[in-house]
Amino acid sequence: MDFQRSSFNAENCSVKRTLDIVGEKWTLLVLREVFYGARRFEQFHAGVGCARNVLTDRLTTLVDHELLRREPYREPGQRQRFEYRLTEKGLDLLPALLALMQWGDRWEADAAGPPVTITHRDCGEPVEVVLRCRAGHTALTARDTAAAAGPGALRVA
Amino acid sequence: MDFQRSSFNAENCSVKRTLDIVGEKWTLLVLREVFYGARRFEQFHAGVGCARNVLTDRLTTLVDHELLRREPYREPGQRQRFEYRLTEKGLDLLPALLALMQWGDRWEADAAGPPVTITHRDCGEPVEVVLRCRAGHTALTARDTAAAAGPGALRVA
Repeated sequence: MDFQRSSFNAENCSVKRTLDIVGEKWTLLVLREVFYGARRFEQFHAGVGCARNVLTDRLTTLVDHELLRREPYREPGQRQRFEYRLTEKGLDLLPALLALMQWGDRWEADAAGPPVTITHRDCGEPVEVVLRCRAGHTALTARDTAAAAGPGALRVA
Repeated sequence: MDFQRSSFNAENCSVKRTLDIVGEKWTLLVLREVFYGARRFEQFHAGVGCARNVLTDRLTTLVDHELLRREPYREPGQRQRFEYRLTEKGLDLLPALLALMQWGDRWEADAAGPPVTITHRDCGEPVEVVLRCRAGHTALTARDTAAAAGPGALRVA
């Protein structure tokens, strides 16, 4: 998909803006754990396996950008702590996370196959990430797509 | 989507394996430029804007993992150089890249709107990344999905 790329400034690129928030491996792995049901610091720490200060930093980034929200809780006899829950903005990142997973399943999995399967809760069939156009054409590939300047394009003077 | 996460080792997680290859901001931005039509070092450098040694390193990573292949070319009077072309493995990363873009378009774009539009080459309609199950149920959200151990799951002893 070619367009006159050199005529536009990529400063406001949406891929870059997304990666400025989640484009760090641990951040996406923290989100993976949230989708798998983790809510508490120790669950994230057990699942992600990064250093505790790194994890604290990544959770703060996700809260600051409103992908996660903090909810207070208190276990009997303990001080108040916080759980982390997905916001709508955070939930909306699932297609990106599953697209990365699907690529890894296809190209980097062990011979035994993918470690995790994602299914449709209602019917039990496997879930796939696909490219579809608004007219309903589906399973599009890179060769079926074209890029063009959008309404927010920054044209180079 | 909950499953008994703590019963499984995430060492072979497909998200992690993908991010081990492309989970660095510059790497995905290099791939963005390839999808936009860049083939030569100077095109990548102009589009991505990272340091030349970082760019060299990221291109090497993408070639080593077979997302890009090098093709020799020679301009008149110059020494032989290399272009970079997407392999099937690299082309297959487009859904992940567009999923990241779509999230950024929705949550982080300027008021003017998305800087780039992706359309279906045949019909001109906008392309979306959607979650679909094999039974054909489409536009699934996080709440419609369930995760379970797959054939390659590593159970914790």
